[in-house]
Amino acid sequence: MKILALTGGVGGAKLALGLSQCLAPDEVDFVVNTGDDFKHLGFHISPDIDTLTYTLGNVANPETGWGRDDETWNFMESLEALGGDTWFKIGDRDLALHVFRQQQLESGKTLTEITKIITNQLGIKSRVLPVSNDPVPTIVETTEGPLPFQHYFVRDRCKPVVTGFQFSQVDKATLNPEIDFETTDAVVICPSNPFVSVDPMLAIPGMRSALHAFKGPIVAVSPIIGGAAIKGPTAKMMKELKIPTTTVQVAKHYIGLINCFVIDQQDHSHREAVKQLGLTTDVQQTVMVTLEDRIQLAKAVLDLVRNIR
Amino acid sequence: MKILALTGGVGGAKLALGLSQCLAPDEVDFVVNTGDDFKHLGFHISPDIDTLTYTLGNVANPETGWGRDDETWNFMESLEALGGDTWFKIGDRDLALHVFRQQQLESGKTLTEITKIITNQLGIKSRVLPVSNDPVPTIVETTEGPLPFQHYFVRDRCKPVVTGFQFSQVDKATLNPEIDFETTDAVVICPSNPFVSVDPMLAIPGMRSALHAFKGPIVAVSPIIGGAAIKGPTAKMMKELKIPTTTVQVAKHYIGLINCFVIDQQDHSHREAVKQLGLTTDVQQTVMVTLEDRIQLAKAVLDLVRNIR
Repeated sequence: MKILALTGGVGGAKLALGLSQCLAPDEVDFVVNTGDDFKHLGFHISPDIDTLTYTLGNVANPETGWGRDDETWNFMESLEALGGDTWFKIGDRDLALHVFRQQQLESGKTLTEITKIITNQLGIKSRVLPVSNDPVPTIVETTEGPLPFQHYFVRDRCKPVVTGFQFSQVDKATLNPEIDFETTDAVVICPSNPFVSVDPMLAIPGMRSALHAFKGPIVAVSPIIGGAAIKGPTAKMMKELKIPTTTVQVAKHYIGLINCFVIDQQDHSHREAVKQLGLTTDVQQTVMVTLEDRIQLAKAVLDLVRNIR
Repeated sequence: MKILALTGGVGGAKLALGLSQCLAPDEVDFVVNTGDDFKHLGFHISPDIDTLTYTLGNVANPETGWGRDDETWNFMESLEALGGDTWFKIGDRDLALHVFRQQQLESGKTLTEITKIITNQLGIKSRVLPVSNDPVPTIVETTEGPLPFQHYFVRDRCKPVVTGFQFSQVDKATLNPEIDFETTDAVVICPSNPFVSVDPMLAIPGMRSALHAFKGPIVAVSPIIGGAAIKGPTAKMMKELKIPTTTVQVAKHYIGLINCFVIDQQDHSHREAVKQLGLTTDVQQTVMVTLEDRIQLAKAVLDLVRNIR
């Protein structure tokens, strides 16, 4: 069975790791959001690709979920002493990846080619595919004006009130040609932020139509648990967009696209409402604290997919 | 009294530090070789400027003479794991300077402007002036073919046999307009490599004629002591160029340009030969191990200059 897993950063990467533990390397391709990518300190930075890469490569920081383990911060400290920009934290080890990628980009390689080199070097055998090789920077529209995603997310710590999103340059972007729906048996939308992790991928020309044309199961795992998000601004964004912060609303967000939805056991009372949307549902422990939790949820998602087929 | 000190990296920086300890900040300008500069890992790297900056900023690595103290190497280690170039060692703290400079260069600032920002941030009050804002990369001609300086110096560890030097692009270069001979009372050529630290500066159009027109003392301190160089390939280069490795030959190298030459006490027997060249001579302990040695030699050079005037 071949899975295509769509993922953003930290939350999605947890399930991605679980899937990678349950499947052979060629049984899963990861398609990763690049709407968070930005140029910083002269480097093209791909936060979601990097989080997934570090997670699958077993070198992620277990505390933060992003960045490297065994990290030091002397670059950042010295940059601060020079008066450089330090709002976006780059560790000494993490920086190697950004320097390497920027060099490779300047030599003419695509983001996909570079990601392949990096994942190979870190011993990752599954494919990690940027959703597009073209820039598709997400702009967060706020009551304080439009903000590039990382300015909203990291610099301003998600404080500005969100009014909408712009997936800029998306019309000119081409879906990564290595994303292969033909050989895919099921699509998994990982528990990532629907607005800024999944929607930017869905906005790439060709992605929605490919999913509509796809005959197999498309499962989304709810990133909303008990009315809140484990991490990140999903719930805050929903509130600001006047959407009730329930798992049902996430299911509704994906309606017409998915045929299967996994809700957390804390939300079992919402199961009927999700079913009413015409979706196959499953209730699982979706809070992933340990590696076992990640594997457990991945197994449940794969079982569900097998049963539907 | 206002001193203009011409310097390369490690050896020259030792005397430069001594001078900075003996003079008020506005009594000395440092003019620095940029022939060693190169683009590496996407960064413009200025080894001699950086060595001087770290030395004057009191953050240099006391063991190596180059790079930062209290340095870590996690960037390099992680870059190696990604398959990146690691022959030129950049520490985590050192890297901050290169990232910062590259960003500033890309924003359109000159090397002089950027050096000013960096030295200010590190609390250095004297002026550190790149000899030119234009690229003047030194090419080392060897029996194995021409090599960019850092490839010869660092990657190949000075092993190739030298046959000559090319100061490429020097004809198109402009002398740093902030170098001010008008207000200068004496010029000091620090004990740097004559071929690859001092000559590239002398090759910039306008530098030799400015020195010829200069009326005050021009003192060079010999980098050759007892037939050898304390550090670096000066003696090896002389041998390969069939020049006897004596302090007299260094004096001859600068003849017509300098009027005063400082030799080491180990070479006191060469004093007469240097005098024969028509130069005022002084014999000093030029081996600088401690800070006191640096200050002592700087004091001696300044005394000499005062006596000549």
